[in-house]
Amino acid sequence: MQAQLIALDWGTSSLRAYKLGSAGVVLDQRSLASGIMHLPSEPRDIAGVRCSNGFELAFDSACGDWLDAQPDLPVIACGMVGSAQGWSEAAYRNTPVDVASLGQALHKVRSVRGFDVHIVPGVIEQGGLPNVMRGEETQVLGVLHGLAPHVLIGLPGSHSKWVEVVEGCITHFDTFMTGELFAVLSQHSILGRTQQSSEHFHTEAFDRGVQVALSADGRRGVLSTLFSARTLGLTAQLTPEQQPDYLSGLLIGHELAGLPDSAKPKPIVLVGAVPLCARYQRALALCGFADVSLAQAASERGLWQLAVAAGLTQPVTEA
Amino acid sequence: MQAQLIALDWGTSSLRAYKLGSAGVVLDQRSLASGIMHLPSEPRDIAGVRCSNGFELAFDSACGDWLDAQPDLPVIACGMVGSAQGWSEAAYRNTPVDVASLGQALHKVRSVRGFDVHIVPGVIEQGGLPNVMRGEETQVLGVLHGLAPHVLIGLPGSHSKWVEVVEGCITHFDTFMTGELFAVLSQHSILGRTQQSSEHFHTEAFDRGVQVALSADGRRGVLSTLFSARTLGLTAQLTPEQQPDYLSGLLIGHELAGLPDSAKPKPIVLVGAVPLCARYQRALALCGFADVSLAQAASERGLWQLAVAAGLTQPVTEA
Repeated sequence: MQAQLIALDWGTSSLRAYKLGSAGVVLDQRSLASGIMHLPSEPRDIAGVRCSNGFELAFDSACGDWLDAQPDLPVIACGMVGSAQGWSEAAYRNTPVDVASLGQALHKVRSVRGFDVHIVPGVIEQGGLPNVMRGEETQVLGVLHGLAPHVLIGLPGSHSKWVEVVEGCITHFDTFMTGELFAVLSQHSILGRTQQSSEHFHTEAFDRGVQVALSADGRRGVLSTLFSARTLGLTAQLTPEQQPDYLSGLLIGHELAGLPDSAKPKPIVLVGAVPLCARYQRALALCGFADVSLAQAASERGLWQLAVAAGLTQPVTEA
Repeated sequence: MQAQLIALDWGTSSLRAYKLGSAGVVLDQRSLASGIMHLPSEPRDIAGVRCSNGFELAFDSACGDWLDAQPDLPVIACGMVGSAQGWSEAAYRNTPVDVASLGQALHKVRSVRGFDVHIVPGVIEQGGLPNVMRGEETQVLGVLHGLAPHVLIGLPGSHSKWVEVVEGCITHFDTFMTGELFAVLSQHSILGRTQQSSEHFHTEAFDRGVQVALSADGRRGVLSTLFSARTLGLTAQLTPEQQPDYLSGLLIGHELAGLPDSAKPKPIVLVGAVPLCARYQRALALCGFADVSLAQAASERGLWQLAVAAGLTQPVTEA
């Protein structure tokens, strides 16, 4: 099948490149460590020009050969590549925003070889405490097809997003720094000193963490319950191997306790790495959220739809 | 004045040594970086014996010359020196505990030169989520004199303690990992990347952080509000220099929001470093806590009283 589009999911720590064919089918894909905070720095020639720009170098590594073979392929990208620290800044769009309409607002940057990269703008919520996303808006679009008109989409990760969608519009979203907090506490705080990593998922310890977050103790907040990850170890109620999963459950539990009660009756769709989504699904069940499902391939599907909306490609190509 | 007691406040990151005279007056004092996680490691001779034990080395540096001059001086110590990772473990005492009675439960370790060091036991609360302290119980005793029968004592720090005292008994306490969280987030998370340290205390940014923690947004929890330290920067509502004080106010605000409402009418006494206590006093005022005072010299006063209770020294020595 002939390729129709190159789609890049370009975040802080990684760059995923997809070669998509008719109807958005994935013909080839690659994952590079060249997130915008980990760009290549070794200068090299690109089409005869000495180049030291990390974005150009990463872009060329990700899909230069695909473009050599088919130079007319359009390119679309989402994620932190469009941030102020990215290749070129794509201004945020305000909520409420119809996600499909973001295809009308792509921001163009031209590569040294003359290829246009169309960057999806992020979304900002203002009014109260500001909130921002870049990349998640594309994933939201990618999973919306066939869902109920009112849904809550959870995107667990370093900075988990919870996005309320009403008839294709992002009306509100929250960010929880759960994944990053877990990482810095495990690596740099006193809690890490008594933890021991293990391949096994300690479900009881995880569930206990979730339940503590939901308990009366949990209402004092995570600054207070965190210390229990240490004291339950000191009192031999958690082994060193159980402590990481207890901490994980505790933090995820506090995140879910922060979701509004109005979210409970809505269908929830989780988007992200499968093992992490499985933890959230388990914790959501303990919190009383009944209707939870997992979605796959959100970024590439969303990028395809935005490229179609922008007229960069056709929804279906005739053979 | 003749010395009566050597008192050591020996924590995780520092060792403070006091030479106390009649009625506990401070005759001399020293501060060493030799907390139990930063002990000296270079072996040397102590009284003709080659010694590589970090506790012995730090003890000798802190007060070896005081003991040379007056070998009959009793020695008392509180803090993490009595933990499982300390010099010798002093078993915890359970709440409720009469703090003055801890003088009857000192744990003795003998130094290589034959000096007995009397270690104050820590306190543990069990039943629900366990909680522990080592050193704070001594500070609580040190400030109790003259206070109302029901007080709440706040000890801000890496692991802030809030201790409820009823007629000289510790009846309940909580721990908040506020200071350590501030440190790891500033040093190791994305929030630190846009922060710039400054000598000036940005009171407006600090107050704003406290108020966000107390607001409806704050009820979603600190995992959610943390991200605002970034987004308020992105939207030019906080300068890089204001961001550390905003984060400080936010975390302290969440800590105080976790105190029970029943605490509000009680007199509060703050014990700790003066600049940090001043931040807490400011935040407490914003939270509606009216009766707040600061106490000084808590550790040395508490150690003196425990030594008197243990019969190691006399309350007042006649000239």
